[in-house]
Amino acid sequence: MLPIPAVGWSPDTNALRILDQRRLPAEEVVRDLVALPDTIDAIRTLAVRGAPAIGVAAAIGLAVAIAADSAGNGARARALLPDFASLLIDARPTAVNLAWAVHRMLRLATETPDEQLIDALRVEAEVIRQDDVAMCAAIGHHGLQLVPDGARVLTHCNAGALATAGMGTALAPIYTAHAAGRFVTVYADETRPLRQGARLTAWELSRAGIHVTVLPDGAAASLIAQRQIDLVIVGADRITANGDVANKVGTYGVALAAHAHGVPFYVAAPWSTIDPATPSGADIVIEHRATDELGELPPGVPAWNPAFDVTPRHLVSAYLTDRGLVSPPFV
Amino acid sequence: MLPIPAVGWSPDTNALRILDQRRLPAEEVVRDLVALPDTIDAIRTLAVRGAPAIGVAAAIGLAVAIAADSAGNGARARALLPDFASLLIDARPTAVNLAWAVHRMLRLATETPDEQLIDALRVEAEVIRQDDVAMCAAIGHHGLQLVPDGARVLTHCNAGALATAGMGTALAPIYTAHAAGRFVTVYADETRPLRQGARLTAWELSRAGIHVTVLPDGAAASLIAQRQIDLVIVGADRITANGDVANKVGTYGVALAAHAHGVPFYVAAPWSTIDPATPSGADIVIEHRATDELGELPPGVPAWNPAFDVTPRHLVSAYLTDRGLVSPPFV
Repeated sequence: MLPIPAVGWSPDTNALRILDQRRLPAEEVVRDLVALPDTIDAIRTLAVRGAPAIGVAAAIGLAVAIAADSAGNGARARALLPDFASLLIDARPTAVNLAWAVHRMLRLATETPDEQLIDALRVEAEVIRQDDVAMCAAIGHHGLQLVPDGARVLTHCNAGALATAGMGTALAPIYTAHAAGRFVTVYADETRPLRQGARLTAWELSRAGIHVTVLPDGAAASLIAQRQIDLVIVGADRITANGDVANKVGTYGVALAAHAHGVPFYVAAPWSTIDPATPSGADIVIEHRATDELGELPPGVPAWNPAFDVTPRHLVSAYLTDRGLVSPPFV
Repeated sequence: MLPIPAVGWSPDTNALRILDQRRLPAEEVVRDLVALPDTIDAIRTLAVRGAPAIGVAAAIGLAVAIAADSAGNGARARALLPDFASLLIDARPTAVNLAWAVHRMLRLATETPDEQLIDALRVEAEVIRQDDVAMCAAIGHHGLQLVPDGARVLTHCNAGALATAGMGTALAPIYTAHAAGRFVTVYADETRPLRQGARLTAWELSRAGIHVTVLPDGAAASLIAQRQIDLVIVGADRITANGDVANKVGTYGVALAAHAHGVPFYVAAPWSTIDPATPSGADIVIEHRATDELGELPPGVPAWNPAFDVTPRHLVSAYLTDRGLVSPPFV
């Protein structure tokens, strides 16, 4: 898929290795991160982004930071864990996978004696990474039925290989269909303000030899109205118990347009994205980001720049997970 | 309203004077244009944009180019007219006001003897300009009832003073309400790819002391869903006989979101924007613009970049024109 995984280990497994997505598509810059503030900064500034990739980065980042800062002392490692965990979770509050991965590491720690703790955290982080690769493959497998030969697929933001440790979530059925010899055309919303569609989705699909066209976010509704789209697949940062979906801002508008024209709208995400503790989208606190992400504005003019929006359940045709196509209630 | 009108005459009336909107908000650059290719280039590259402003620019531009190239010879002026007119009309095919203004100049020419032709074209262009100023004021007057004290208004692209010779169309009710002492908050969609909302609407409103916030196009649906918007007002490039509206790409998505949440969606435009010769939106040829407007894309990745989309009549609450609030059939 990618020449370099979006997130993984450095060869000596002493560092978190990421492909710096702030530099794409112009440059392929790899960074090896050890210190916790560097990992947090990478998550916060979207050098690594996409809910599953953030979870893997947090797990590996936690393991390597604990190993480095404890100097091999298991008791010291355990003492560092609570603070490191909460600092990581605060880096992107909307991404439930981040908290999920960190809590999985903490749970493991409670079951592990001090002398094995540092190694056990490393192993657990690697299991999380491998699970993520397998999760992507499973979504691709279950999603293959949705992408026939000749399919024209619209997506928003980037829920591809760059958003995971594997082949992505929303893009996994596309990669799988392509590998099965089907011709697939992808339309990628630019996804302002950070242009993940234009920079990342377009980059990874075109590198894989898949035909991709970028459009301004505002053009998606008319592309759908012109019957140029057979299905929409997007990712999710959080799916609430009732099926509401928090995803990159702009997703809701695409869902409204798909619904207005009878085009299926699928949300692809790992099962871990489903958050049974949050009843509905109204209970999600939406992260707001800096004004300067919008580029030049007249002096003194503020911006309203939420990172996510909420697509209500009734606009979602089905939820494509590593456990198959599902619908709420999720059990 | 503006420190410099968006479109008008140079002081000696020998040139078309425009405020170069490609340079806003960073710089206020005024250009005086005489040669027809310069006026066409200004229209094509959006140095002057907005349907009414394009109409005024075409009328004044035609008058000054004919005067300059005919060297005062009325017969030569008449001989130049057909070619000049069709070159101007081709500069922006979707903008019906452009063709409307040029045809008005041609009609005047058929009623005018050669020896008065050059002066008559100049006078007619000035009448078109003054009509535009009055049209804006009339839209503001009729639209005042839509904008109560405290109103929160969403708009897309720029249908303001910068889009006309006067105070704008979609923004005219806002300026009028502000002048009447009402507090109005405007949310301006960024409007990719050319960012007319972030660059132009935000600039002109903030200069006029009106509170304006910019948002990514993809955030409009969630802003509406959060009940932060009381009404939407947008402009129009063309309104077909049945009430379908061609306007800046992205308008249709905003209309769908407003409709989904019961928020009134108004289209403000001069009566001349209504094109009885075009039955419906399906009959409009949509102009597609260059890929490079979308900024950096990965090598070889194309863009789908239509200038306009079509909002169907059933999503429009009412049409705000200089003749008042109207609905189709327009008679």
